[in-house]
Amino acid sequence: MDMAELDRLLKQALSEDIGRGDITTDAVFAPDARLSARLKAKESGCIAGLKAAARVFELLDSESEFNPLVEDGTDVKAGTTIAEISASARALLSGERTALNILQRMSGIATATKQVCKKVEDLPVKILDTRKTAPGLRMLDKYAVAAGGGQNHRMGLYDAVLIKDNHIAGAGSIAKAVKKVRAHNGEAVKIEVEVKTPEQVREAVECGADIILLDNIPPGSIREAVDFIDHRAVTEASGGVTPDNVRAYAQAGVDMISIGWLTHSVKAIDINMEIVK
Amino acid sequence: MDMAELDRLLKQALSEDIGRGDITTDAVFAPDARLSARLKAKESGCIAGLKAAARVFELLDSESEFNPLVEDGTDVKAGTTIAEISASARALLSGERTALNILQRMSGIATATKQVCKKVEDLPVKILDTRKTAPGLRMLDKYAVAAGGGQNHRMGLYDAVLIKDNHIAGAGSIAKAVKKVRAHNGEAVKIEVEVKTPEQVREAVECGADIILLDNIPPGSIREAVDFIDHRAVTEASGGVTPDNVRAYAQAGVDMISIGWLTHSVKAIDINMEIVK
Amino acid sequence: MDMAELDRLLKQALSEDIGRGDITTDAVFAPDARLSARLKAKESGCIAGLKAAARVFELLDSESEFNPLVEDGTDVKAGTTIAEISASARALLSGERTALNILQRMSGIATATKQVCKKVEDLPVKILDTRKTAPGLRMLDKYAVAAGGGQNHRMGLYDAVLIKDNHIAGAGSIAKAVKKVRAHNGEAVKIEVEVKTPEQVREAVECGADIILLDNIPPGSIREAVDFIDHRAVTEASGGVTPDNVRAYAQAGVDMISIGWLTHSVKAIDINMEIVK
Amino acid sequence: MDMAELDRLLKQALSEDIGRGDITTDAVFAPDARLSARLKAKESGCIAGLKAAARVFELLDSESEFNPLVEDGTDVKAGTTIAEISASARALLSGERTALNILQRMSGIATATKQVCKKVEDLPVKILDTRKTAPGLRMLDKYAVAAGGGQNHRMGLYDAVLIKDNHIAGAGSIAKAVKKVRAHNGEAVKIEVEVKTPEQVREAVECGADIILLDNIPPGSIREAVDFIDHRAVTEASGGVTPDNVRAYAQAGVDMISIGWLTHSVKAIDINMEIVK
Amino acid sequence: MDMAELDRLLKQALSEDIGRGDITTDAVFAPDARLSARLKAKESGCIAGLKAAARVFELLDSESEFNPLVEDGTDVKAGTTIAEISASARALLSGERTALNILQRMSGIATATKQVCKKVEDLPVKILDTRKTAPGLRMLDKYAVAAGGGQNHRMGLYDAVLIKDNHIAGAGSIAKAVKKVRAHNGEAVKIEVEVKTPEQVREAVECGADIILLDNIPPGSIREAVDFIDHRAVTEASGGVTPDNVRAYAQAGVDMISIGWLTHSVKAIDINMEIVK
Amino acid sequence: MDMAELDRLLKQALSEDIGRGDITTDAVFAPDARLSARLKAKESGCIAGLKAAARVFELLDSESEFNPLVEDGTDVKAGTTIAEISASARALLSGERTALNILQRMSGIATATKQVCKKVEDLPVKILDTRKTAPGLRMLDKYAVAAGGGQNHRMGLYDAVLIKDNHIAGAGSIAKAVKKVRAHNGEAVKIEVEVKTPEQVREAVECGADIILLDNIPPGSIREAVDFIDHRAVTEASGGVTPDNVRAYAQAGVDMISIGWLTHSVKAIDINMEIVK
Repeated sequence: MDMAELDRLLKQALSEDIGRGDITTDAVFAPDARLSARLKAKESGCIAGLKAAARVFELLDSESEFNPLVEDGTDVKAGTTIAEISASARALLSGERTALNILQRMSGIATATKQVCKKVEDLPVKILDTRKTAPGLRMLDKYAVAAGGGQNHRMGLYDAVLIKDNHIAGAGSIAKAVKKVRAHNGEAVKIEVEVKTPEQVREAVECGADIILLDNIPPGSIREAVDFIDHRAVTEASGGVTPDNVRAYAQAGVDMISIGWLTHSVKAIDINMEIVK
Repeated sequence: MDMAELDRLLKQALSEDIGRGDITTDAVFAPDARLSARLKAKESGCIAGLKAAARVFELLDSESEFNPLVEDGTDVKAGTTIAEISASARALLSGERTALNILQRMSGIATATKQVCKKVEDLPVKILDTRKTAPGLRMLDKYAVAAGGGQNHRMGLYDAVLIKDNHIAGAGSIAKAVKKVRAHNGEAVKIEVEVKTPEQVREAVECGADIILLDNIPPGSIREAVDFIDHRAVTEASGGVTPDNVRAYAQAGVDMISIGWLTHSVKAIDINMEIVK
Repeated sequence: MDMAELDRLLKQALSEDIGRGDITTDAVFAPDARLSARLKAKESGCIAGLKAAARVFELLDSESEFNPLVEDGTDVKAGTTIAEISASARALLSGERTALNILQRMSGIATATKQVCKKVEDLPVKILDTRKTAPGLRMLDKYAVAAGGGQNHRMGLYDAVLIKDNHIAGAGSIAKAVKKVRAHNGEAVKIEVEVKTPEQVREAVECGADIILLDNIPPGSIREAVDFIDHRAVTEASGGVTPDNVRAYAQAGVDMISIGWLTHSVKAIDINMEIVK
Repeated sequence: MDMAELDRLLKQALSEDIGRGDITTDAVFAPDARLSARLKAKESGCIAGLKAAARVFELLDSESEFNPLVEDGTDVKAGTTIAEISASARALLSGERTALNILQRMSGIATATKQVCKKVEDLPVKILDTRKTAPGLRMLDKYAVAAGGGQNHRMGLYDAVLIKDNHIAGAGSIAKAVKKVRAHNGEAVKIEVEVKTPEQVREAVECGADIILLDNIPPGSIREAVDFIDHRAVTEASGGVTPDNVRAYAQAGVDMISIGWLTHSVKAIDINMEIVK
Repeated sequence: MDMAELDRLLKQALSEDIGRGDITTDAVFAPDARLSARLKAKESGCIAGLKAAARVFELLDSESEFNPLVEDGTDVKAGTTIAEISASARALLSGERTALNILQRMSGIATATKQVCKKVEDLPVKILDTRKTAPGLRMLDKYAVAAGGGQNHRMGLYDAVLIKDNHIAGAGSIAKAVKKVRAHNGEAVKIEVEVKTPEQVREAVECGADIILLDNIPPGSIREAVDFIDHRAVTEASGGVTPDNVRAYAQAGVDMISIGWLTHSVKAIDINMEIVK
Repeated sequence: MDMAELDRLLKQALSEDIGRGDITTDAVFAPDARLSARLKAKESGCIAGLKAAARVFELLDSESEFNPLVEDGTDVKAGTTIAEISASARALLSGERTALNILQRMSGIATATKQVCKKVEDLPVKILDTRKTAPGLRMLDKYAVAAGGGQNHRMGLYDAVLIKDNHIAGAGSIAKAVKKVRAHNGEAVKIEVEVKTPEQVREAVECGADIILLDNIPPGSIREAVDFIDHRAVTEASGGVTPDNVRAYAQAGVDMISIGWLTHSVKAIDINMEIVK
């Protein structure tokens, strides 16, 4: 994780929560009062975000100590203590909500990812994320997908080519779009083309697409497309994939399945912080 | 909505997605190519975030036009066109994902809020949000709650006092915590105290708490607490409230119910963008 | 004091003074030359700002040592050494003016505040500051008021409600303004109303204002208003209060007196830095 | 005035006052409500800061109109309307305090400067400011001095050389300090030397100082020094100069007199804003 | 070109040159004085950077007009007027040096690139840049290469994989490095491997490298490598390529030649600005 | 060197190269892998920039160790090891290019400066740089000139006056321009006037210019001008000076010669980094 970017993001989150000061905690605790606490999972799930949580407290108190008891990516049962913290009372209580908001969201993403990955663990397919992340949180959202066993798709519009329907319409055809993209970007980038019909599959293969994204196509038709492509390009399925139907897509033989639901509709894992007497 | 803060947030979101450039769109469309598009709800829900979405395109193309067809807070059916956009092709396609990510999350929050509010619309209770928002997105998350008919609780730790168990333990008693907070903050702020037992309710009333937060208390016991308080303080219930049980809490007579689930576990509403031929 | 905000402010102040470098000091002293110095009050006053002064030198030389001999809020006589510093010669001489500018202003504010507080120390009244602070220096100005024994009023427009004449005119009446503010802000904030006449006092009490600000009203009439209010709201006097007339306002029975003069017309306390041989 | 620097400074000032929003004004006035107002001097003085005040409202409402009725540097009597403003009600009321804080401070500085300049207007001497400005406000403070008829000394440590006692002690002698400074800075900068005794005056002249600052020397001795220097260097007096004694310093024949009091102990000029019915 | 990034870069450049103000120009020209000028090439070359130069003046004066007479990428003879400018006198003279510094460097890069490209224009090879750009100026440097007819290699370490000797040593072998990189980055990125020997060429081909960079290999041996690779990977030559030997490398059959010299040792093209009477 | 400015500049350079991460190095090396390396000059030259290079690695790994074996300003032969580094493998490999880009440019400037200085080392003349530096790199470029034995001219438009032809035309005459500049800037700054003819030389001397810049005048005519000026002002020659003709200008008797070529057309010195087994 890019620590400078993490710091920028955490400072923003702390600023929106603490602003000019925690007017409750600062009234009750002296600057030099110290407390210890435990982070505990109140439901089962796959934990992610411990480094980010640790950094929250470190930003508020450079002498805080954060001792993780599990690693990111670990499945825990309800009741598991996942980290111990010792810090100034002010840092601990003022940072609590921000740290938990991060851990709960990231663990929610990791848990959903792991749930999906387990459904296809015996098959040679990768589960990928998408760009459907919360605004400003892409780095954390993608980190959580990786912690849950998924693989990260492109970070954004800048680091990989994905030719979609509007690009095809704009260029005139898949072949013309591929040609324009190749001229613009040179040989260093792979070209992925999103297709919806067998004709488009054929056209994409013929013009040398590196990856073909089969979008909103039912598993049966995907099987046919994969057979036609026959390893001339890497294949990816996307569109409406859920834990319930992911196995059918995987069995259709694609190399990768990307799922927006992993990050656009996150169910937080309940984690709390308990002060240790 | 604070437009400067909105711009900061949107620029961050655009930067993480577009970075040094959209290497697909920039290859296909000339800088002066223009396109028109429609934003369409693909499932029913309560729309929120249209101003933020409009601003996404305006930041990318100052001459873009964004014409909302509904207002934030409107319930729409699946298939409703919610806005029309005209902009440079590059702005439209490079901003699409960021605008949709925002609209889908905010509409998801507004929809959930409206669902809860409807359950208690005949009762004199307010539905409030919490600080359990996505890191960096509090302003948008809280705006969406208001669009859905909820009321915003404090923005953060800086603008209202909430004395919780750890503050009580640190100060020695509710009365001591209230006294410290009053000395620290003067007369200008209201003091809310989180209580878990009838004894704490009594203590909070006696030391002049302005608002009493009844935390994780079943509706039956809440009724008793509300009767005991007898309008000597504003009352709020929180902890494990869901659409299924919110009515029982409301019928117990509290003035306000705050629900973390509104913002910590958001189910995105499916909205897409279609290019108009 | 918010250390991140302090750093931002000090870096700005150092930047405007030092810019690309202190072309005199850098020419004379080698990077590794070290010096010791004393900060000395050249006139009597109440000291404030030592932490900020220490931080100036620390920002320029992380190995500087700043040993305060008094605490913020202490009254000192002319000639008192208030701190000892050991730092690189460059940090000491390049930071001198910025540190002194801060100390002199903050001590000026603390001294004025203490002068006023002493006039009413036997009476149950609080002396408050206002928002009439130097642009960008509110945090330091308010800190200095507190160091001098005053109490801080709201930090800004965001953390407390104060309904003034233009708001009343805009809403149509005090009652309508209070209603709008309550609807906008919920139960979490107190509502203060600025009044100028007995009729307004009555109206403010009747619509449940939490605090009533008696603006530009002579002490005699204030006494009548306080009697009428009879503890149904907290009372505050403001407008033209000086050290000479503050006692009359206090004797009129208000709970709080706010004074713009504490921060808008600061007389610096003379403090200098002497190099120790 | 550097407009980018002005914007930075004003945004900071608005941010510290408005933060997440003016919770009173936003509750009362709709976004599209507009108001007109007048800025009026409530006491006589020399006005400065109108451009900065105008910019405050422009930053909050790009369609605001600010019509100054006098120019910076104009002396006005109590009761004079100095500007008319038309803006959104929210911009007008939320920006009022920040604009007035700036105008009042800058007009206070300009008024004090003009008072001093008038005392010596028949003599060939310039009145200068110093670096004793409020932290972060040097640009505005120096602008106000110029508006009042004074001349700006160096902006900071980076744009002119001033060899003071500690530099002399560090280098070993005035001559050695001058030599080091010349070697470090080349021929492009003038060298000013602060002296306290006739011996130092002689030494400074001999080593070719361009400007000699006669520090804390009574007018009688200054006369002798000026005679001795005999135009071989520009002469400046400083230290304890006030409106009462400035004429004596000027009559002693120095070219320039610098006065810290102009900016370190500012008495604000009372200016208010009245809504126009 | 990313306009936001361009603005950041230009503001930085203007700030380092103008700082608190152009103390010569501001003294001589009133704020409303306007001037017209011509940018003229004083030696022949390929022009690049006109948009950046235009933006310099626009940042200083939003009403400036910049009329380019040629396009970026055009070869001009000595004496050609390349643009006409009309702006405030202050913007024109204070921005002159920054605009010229940019134009001269970028035109120098474009000219060198074009010189190289012409040597091989009849051969099916692309001339590429490297990451050997001036710190902070990569965007401008790469833009200039493209203007001169070259193609941009990866922007940085983040958008393409290049496995070099130290990565191979760290992983244990080319095959192991490729495997690790593939696992880390998924299918979306191409993998380039830098090789120095025939054995490494073979190993790179066998493990499926998309591009093979033949580093510091003489043209004769490159021919053998290209023959061996036989289109199983894209080929690139690098290391010590100059205008004098570039044709030999191109004739050896590689697809691309990358040349650090294009940007690390730039000879500025002489361009000046003349005020039009 | 201003370390804060250096950090800003280096962070920018690292950001443009590394962005969201070095996708090659991060794939191959674990976060805790460490490596040692040597920086070696591959051609002879004068080294500059070691502190900046050290800081690159320190910013990426606060525990990195950078041991310089020579000082900035030292002439080295091809093959000399100039520094040893120990750092995390990721910091070392991800920072390599940025550190080398800086070192190679700065050493190129220092080498060119030293070459020129040696040509005139027996003459009483100073070699100066100009404002013709790479945008954003002025601090580093000027540092390198000083390391090579040159002297820094003004940093920018803000810290010294240089009246050029357009200023003279704008003011009406040299005398009028000098008068305006003196009125605007007071006595604290030196005034340099750029002249092209004997008449202008005379005019500049008569109106008291401190420095006279003889622009684009052949050495013979410069000799006459220097004789005429006769130490009434400091003299500087500029315009088309190269290593080949610099001695003729120096022998003409000027005090200073400024050379744009030192920084506008830099030939990088070849320096590389070798991993130590």
